[in-house]
Amino acid sequence: MKKALDEAYFAFEKGEVPVGAVIVMNNQIIARGHNLTEQLNDVTAHAEMQAFTAASNFLGGKYLQECTLYVTLEPCQMCAGASYWTQIGKIVYGASDMQRGYSKLKTLLHPKTKAISGVREDECSQILKDFFLSKRNNN
Amino acid sequence: MKKALDEAYFAFEKGEVPVGAVIVMNNQIIARGHNLTEQLNDVTAHAEMQAFTAASNFLGGKYLQECTLYVTLEPCQMCAGASYWTQIGKIVYGASDMQRGYSKLKTLLHPKTKAISGVREDECSQILKDFFLSKRNNN
Repeated sequence: MKKALDEAYFAFEKGEVPVGAVIVMNNQIIARGHNLTEQLNDVTAHAEMQAFTAASNFLGGKYLQECTLYVTLEPCQMCAGASYWTQIGKIVYGASDMQRGYSKLKTLLHPKTKAISGVREDECSQILKDFFLSKRNNN
Repeated sequence: MKKALDEAYFAFEKGEVPVGAVIVMNNQIIARGHNLTEQLNDVTAHAEMQAFTAASNFLGGKYLQECTLYVTLEPCQMCAGASYWTQIGKIVYGASDMQRGYSKLKTLLHPKTKAISGVREDECSQILKDFFLSKRNNN
């Protein structure tokens, strides 16, 4: 999760909502991503989506059953829905998203996917709080 | 929807599950997409996702409130979740997906999004049936 937080900081520096993700297989990071929705003008450019695409490129296959996604914020419906198609083995996330998170909205994960929440939750939440505070202060 | 079906036929010819999408604004097609998950080895490469990205590129903005998505198959959780973020004005789809479709799985659409189903449903279903029949006959 430390590496996912590093990705979130990259997003912060670019003025993006700071969410970061990495995908790990056999204890190695095979993909990284951070939110780029503003820079790319594209709502599909969430950290997880980029990480899924990068991991599939790396592996040369579209299924990620042996992989774990670490992401600083709970995935939304889109990202959880994408995870369904990847059949990813595990999702570990930091901060919960009580409004737009997949668990609140009951998005179906793949039956093979385990989910763990609350890992480094304070740090993952704090960077988001800092970001929105800085935005408010700049406006 | 005729143009979305044309996109689905392009997918069919490439050996992809034949789903096609177009996005229309002011009676003009501003984006097209067809399923490329096999070719790109990427589960995120659904027709709708590509069309959302292309429409945002075309408009230079990530919101699609004035747009209508025409897609041959009912969007899945991922694509419906993406549509939430785009705030798209309308979704018109052909065939229903009783297993993986967003309405069965109760994915939340944006409050501004209207959805219409069953447009050219028979043609949109038939191309999928033809595809899976051809796959079975080739195996």
